[in-house]
Amino acid sequence: MKKIINAPENYVDEMLEGIYVAHPDLVTYVADDLRCLVTANKKEGKVGIATGGGSGHLPLFLGYVGRGMLDGCCVGDVFQSPSSEQMLAVTKAIDSGAGVLYIYGNYNGDIFNFNMAAEMAEFEEGIRVETVLGADDVASGPLPAEGEKSIRRGVAGIFFVYKCAGAAADRMMSLDDVKRVAEKATASVRTMGVALTPCIVPRVGHPGFSIGDDEMEIGMGIHGETGIRRGKLEPADQIVEEMMEKILADFDEIDGSRVAVLVNGLGATTLDEQYIVTRKIDSILKSRNITVKRYYVGEYATALEMAGVSISVLKLDEELESLLEEPAQTPFFHQGSVSEEGTVKMDVKKAAGTAAEGSAEEKNGEDVNSLVEFLKKVSEIMAEHKDYLIDLDSVVGDGDLGLTMSDGFAAAYKAVHGTGETDSGKLLYTAGKAMSIAVPSTMGTLMASGLMQAGKKLRGKTETGLAESVELFEGYAEGVMALGKAKVGDKTFLDGMVPAVEALKAAQAAGKDLNAAAKDAKEAAQKGFENTTSMIAVHGRAATRGEASRSLKDPGAAVAMLIMDAFEQSL
Amino acid sequence: MKKIINAPENYVDEMLEGIYVAHPDLVTYVADDLRCLVTANKKEGKVGIATGGGSGHLPLFLGYVGRGMLDGCCVGDVFQSPSSEQMLAVTKAIDSGAGVLYIYGNYNGDIFNFNMAAEMAEFEEGIRVETVLGADDVASGPLPAEGEKSIRRGVAGIFFVYKCAGAAADRMMSLDDVKRVAEKATASVRTMGVALTPCIVPRVGHPGFSIGDDEMEIGMGIHGETGIRRGKLEPADQIVEEMMEKILADFDEIDGSRVAVLVNGLGATTLDEQYIVTRKIDSILKSRNITVKRYYVGEYATALEMAGVSISVLKLDEELESLLEEPAQTPFFHQGSVSEEGTVKMDVKKAAGTAAEGSAEEKNGEDVNSLVEFLKKVSEIMAEHKDYLIDLDSVVGDGDLGLTMSDGFAAAYKAVHGTGETDSGKLLYTAGKAMSIAVPSTMGTLMASGLMQAGKKLRGKTETGLAESVELFEGYAEGVMALGKAKVGDKTFLDGMVPAVEALKAAQAAGKDLNAAAKDAKEAAQKGFENTTSMIAVHGRAATRGEASRSLKDPGAAVAMLIMDAFEQSL
Repeated sequence: MKKIINAPENYVDEMLEGIYVAHPDLVTYVADDLRCLVTANKKEGKVGIATGGGSGHLPLFLGYVGRGMLDGCCVGDVFQSPSSEQMLAVTKAIDSGAGVLYIYGNYNGDIFNFNMAAEMAEFEEGIRVETVLGADDVASGPLPAEGEKSIRRGVAGIFFVYKCAGAAADRMMSLDDVKRVAEKATASVRTMGVALTPCIVPRVGHPGFSIGDDEMEIGMGIHGETGIRRGKLEPADQIVEEMMEKILADFDEIDGSRVAVLVNGLGATTLDEQYIVTRKIDSILKSRNITVKRYYVGEYATALEMAGVSISVLKLDEELESLLEEPAQTPFFHQGSVSEEGTVKMDVKKAAGTAAEGSAEEKNGEDVNSLVEFLKKVSEIMAEHKDYLIDLDSVVGDGDLGLTMSDGFAAAYKAVHGTGETDSGKLLYTAGKAMSIAVPSTMGTLMASGLMQAGKKLRGKTETGLAESVELFEGYAEGVMALGKAKVGDKTFLDGMVPAVEALKAAQAAGKDLNAAAKDAKEAAQKGFENTTSMIAVHGRAATRGEASRSLKDPGAAVAMLIMDAFEQSL
Repeated sequence: MKKIINAPENYVDEMLEGIYVAHPDLVTYVADDLRCLVTANKKEGKVGIATGGGSGHLPLFLGYVGRGMLDGCCVGDVFQSPSSEQMLAVTKAIDSGAGVLYIYGNYNGDIFNFNMAAEMAEFEEGIRVETVLGADDVASGPLPAEGEKSIRRGVAGIFFVYKCAGAAADRMMSLDDVKRVAEKATASVRTMGVALTPCIVPRVGHPGFSIGDDEMEIGMGIHGETGIRRGKLEPADQIVEEMMEKILADFDEIDGSRVAVLVNGLGATTLDEQYIVTRKIDSILKSRNITVKRYYVGEYATALEMAGVSISVLKLDEELESLLEEPAQTPFFHQGSVSEEGTVKMDVKKAAGTAAEGSAEEKNGEDVNSLVEFLKKVSEIMAEHKDYLIDLDSVVGDGDLGLTMSDGFAAAYKAVHGTGETDSGKLLYTAGKAMSIAVPSTMGTLMASGLMQAGKKLRGKTETGLAESVELFEGYAEGVMALGKAKVGDKTFLDGMVPAVEALKAAQAAGKDLNAAAKDAKEAAQKGFENTTSMIAVHGRAATRGEASRSLKDPGAAVAMLIMDAFEQSL
C-alpha cells in the first residue's frame, strides 16, 4: 500500500484536521466531533441540507458543504456509514426552523443511520426532516417501477442533486419545494462508470478486488461493487460509446433535449484522459441533437486512488437549468459569485451539544424500572452467546454480529443503569439511542430502532405487566420492520420476534400470567429461529446465495430468541 | 499501460478538443492550431501573459488561462516543448499594445523556443516581450548566487507566480511592473515534492523509471527527474517534516512571517492524503510562528498519474498578499468574482494568421540569392550524413540528431527555394523560422537561432562575398551562443563553428579569396570537431558522464563541420 499516511486508523480524522486547517472560512464542525462538518456561514430561515456517507470519496461528500449547496455533512470511516448520532448533531446545527433535507446515496448502512437520525431529530427537537436518495448508477440495477423504491446506488450524479437542491434552498424555497427539486434532479440524472484498477482501504491495506493488467470493468461501483461487464481494455472512444449508449437508453426521451454533463475522474486517471472522454461524449451528444448547457470535468466523486472515470448526464428542464446556473462556493466547487446577504457565522457552541450530551451526568440513581433488569439480562446473554452468534454469522454474513450485539446491548444497558429513570418509554428510547451510537452497523441500528419504537409505545408507563410486554415487543418488531423493510418469512430477526409477539398475545387472550406468557414467547421465538431453515434469505449477503441459503439458520432470528430468553429470565 | 485513451499520438490533441468543448466561455485557440490556447475574453490595453510547456501536467499549464491569470498558453506533446512558432502565434494574439510577459518553467527546451518566439515577436511585429522563469524546486539545485541564473526547475510553485502576475496585469500595471511582481513571486516561492510511483508517457507506453514497492523519492521532479534521496516509504508526518525543513531552510528569513501554501497532488494520490499532509504542515508552521494566509489543496500541477505530493510555500509581503486575494476565473481555478469590465471576445480570425501565414503563397520565383544554393547543399549533406549523425548522437544523446538536422535543413531550404527573395537577411531569417517550426528540439532550435541571427546581420545585403561570409557565420555562432549559453571548449557545435569563423577572418586578413577562405574554414571546422575528444561535456546528456565523456566526438561539432563543407561546395 503506497500512501502518504500515518496510522491507518487515524486516516479520516487527520484528513479532517487538514480540511479545517485549509478552509476555516467555509466549514467548521459541531458536537466536538471532527466528523460532524457544517457550513461556517449559516443562512437564517433557509432549509438546511445535509448529506453524509463513508470517507474515501473526496471531494464527495463534505467538499460540497458551503454557500449555495449543502449545510452539513457527516462522514464515517473509509467506505463506512457515519452514526445516526453524528447526523443528529449536524441536523440540529443546520436547522433554522425551516426543516432539514437529507440527500445521500442509496446504501443500506447510510439509510439506517439517517432514518434513525431523522426520527431522533423529530422526537427530540421537533425538526421536520425529509429525505431524497441519490440513485443514479445505471449499472447497479433497473429503473424502479412506478411508486417503488430504486435499488440503484448513488454515485457521482448526486453532485447535480446537491447543486440544484442547494440553489433552491438558497432561493429560500420551502422544504417541500426543495425536496421536489431534489427528487426531480434525482429522477433526471444517470451515471455509468468504468474502472481500470482497484483501490486500497487504508485499514485493510490491500486491494479490495483484482483486475487483470489488460482489463477494465464497465459499471463498477465506487466501492468496487461488481459492474455489468468485465473485458479487455478498449480504446477510449469505444468505452465511451458503450457507456453513453447505456446512459442515454435509460432516459424516456433524450434526443433533442438540453443536458448538463459531469465527467468524473475516480482517482488515478489523469485530467487529460477525462478530456479525451469529454470530447467523445460531445460528438455522441451532437449526433443525437442533444445540447450541452455545461460540462463539469474533474474529480467530483472518487474511489480513493482507483483508476477510471464516470459519466453523468442530467436532463434539464427550465427550473433545473436555472438552478444549476446559480452561484456556489464550497471547498471544492466554485461557480459565479455568492452573496453574503443573510448569513451569520455558525454558532458552533450552541449547536455542539448533542453528541456529548449528558455524558457528564451523575449516575447514582436507583434502577427503579424493571426494564433495566431486562436490558441487563439481554446484555449478559448476548455476551455469553457472542461466539455462538459469530459462528452463525460467519456462514452467511461478515461474522461481526456477536461483537455488535454484545457491545450494543452492553451500551444500551449502561445508558440506563443508575439513572433512576422511571418512564419506560424514555428508558427504552435512551437505551436504543446509546446502542445506535455504539454499534452503527446494520443489525445494531435495527435493534436500536426496535428499542426506540418500543420506547415510543411505552411512553408514560412505569410498570411492565403483560399488556405492556405485548406493546413493548410489538413496538420492537415494528421498529425493526420500518427501518429494515423486511417482512415475516424473509429469514430475518422478525422470524424469531413476530412468533414471540403472537405467543404473548395468545397467552394474554388465554388469561395466562406474565411468567407463563414469557415462557410461551421464549419457546415461540426458539421455534421461529429453527424454522428459518425452511426459508430463503432475501436480505443482506445471505440473499446472494438464493436456494443455497435455505439450510442455514438465520443469526438475526437467533438474536430474537436470545432477547426473549433474557426477558423471561429477567422477570 | 492502463489509460482511457485512443491512439497515443492523438493524446494531446484529443485532450485539447475536450478542453474547448468543455470551456468555450473561457478559452479558445488561434492559428488554427489547438495547441495555441488563448483566453476567450481579451482585456484591451492589458499586459498579456503567456506560458507553455509540455503536456501531461494538467491543470498546469493551460488550465490557468482565463480571467485574472494568464492570457495564452502553448502546449507541446507530453513532457515536450511547444514550438517557437506556436508561441509566436499566441504572443501576437494576446498582445494589445502593452507588451507580453512570458512566465514558464526553467527547462532548456522551453527556454530555447520561447526565447526564439520573443525574438520573432519583436522582429516581426515590434511586440515587447519580457520573460520570468519559474524556478521553485528546492531539490533541483542550490539557490543561484546574486545576479546568476537559477538552475532550479519550475514546478507547482509557478501557480503562485501566475496568480500574482495575473492579478497585477488585471490591475492594468505596466509590463515592467508585472515583470517585477512575477520576479518577486518567483524569488519568494519554494517547492519540494515526493514521488511514490512512476508515470507513463502515452507514446512511450512504459514507466519512465522504476521505484521499489516500499520506496519513495524525495525531491523528484515532475518528469521523473532524480530527487535528493530515495528511501523506504515513511509515515506522512515524517515525510512532511523532511520536506518542510528543506523548504523553510531555503528562505533567508521565514519565522514569524506570513505565507500562502500550496499542497499539490501529483496525480494518483488522494485528496485525503493531501489533507493529511496539510494538517502536518500547519502544525510545523504554527511552531515556527508562521501565519498561513491561505491554503490551496488539490491537483494544481501533476505528472500524469504519478503518486506523490508537492508542497509550495510563498512568502508574502503586502503586495503579493493583496494580489493573491484578487479574483480569478479559469477552467481550473476560481476565486472570488471577476468583473466583465473592459473585456472583449478574443478575435480569433484576426489573430489566427501566424502559423499558416504564407503557406498558400505561390512559389515560382527564381533563386537569385546564392545563399539558397548554400542551404540546398547543407540540406543534401545532412541527408547524406543522417546515419553518421545518428550513430554519433546515440552514444551521447538520444540519437535523433540525424533526423533533426536532415529534416530541419530540408525545411529551411524549402522555405526559401523559389521565393525569388533577394535580401540575404530576410532569406536566412525565413529559413531559420521554418527550421524552428519543423524541428523544435534543442539542436533544431539552436540551428534556427543561428540562421536567424545571421539573417539579422545580413539584412539588406544581396550578395555574399568574403566579408558577408564572415558576418554570416559570426552571426550564426552568436545566435547559437545566445540561446544555448555555451562557450568554446564546452564540447558543442561552437567547437566546430568558432574555429571556422576564425579561419575565415584569418583568410580575409591574409587577402585570400572566398574559395580559399571557405576551404580554410572547412578544414578548421573539421579539426575543431576532432579536437572535441580533448574536452569534457558540460551541456546536455553527455555532461552526466563527466570525465568519461572526454573520449567521445561531439555530434554538434560534426554538424558545424558539415555546414562548412556545404558552404565550400556551394560556391
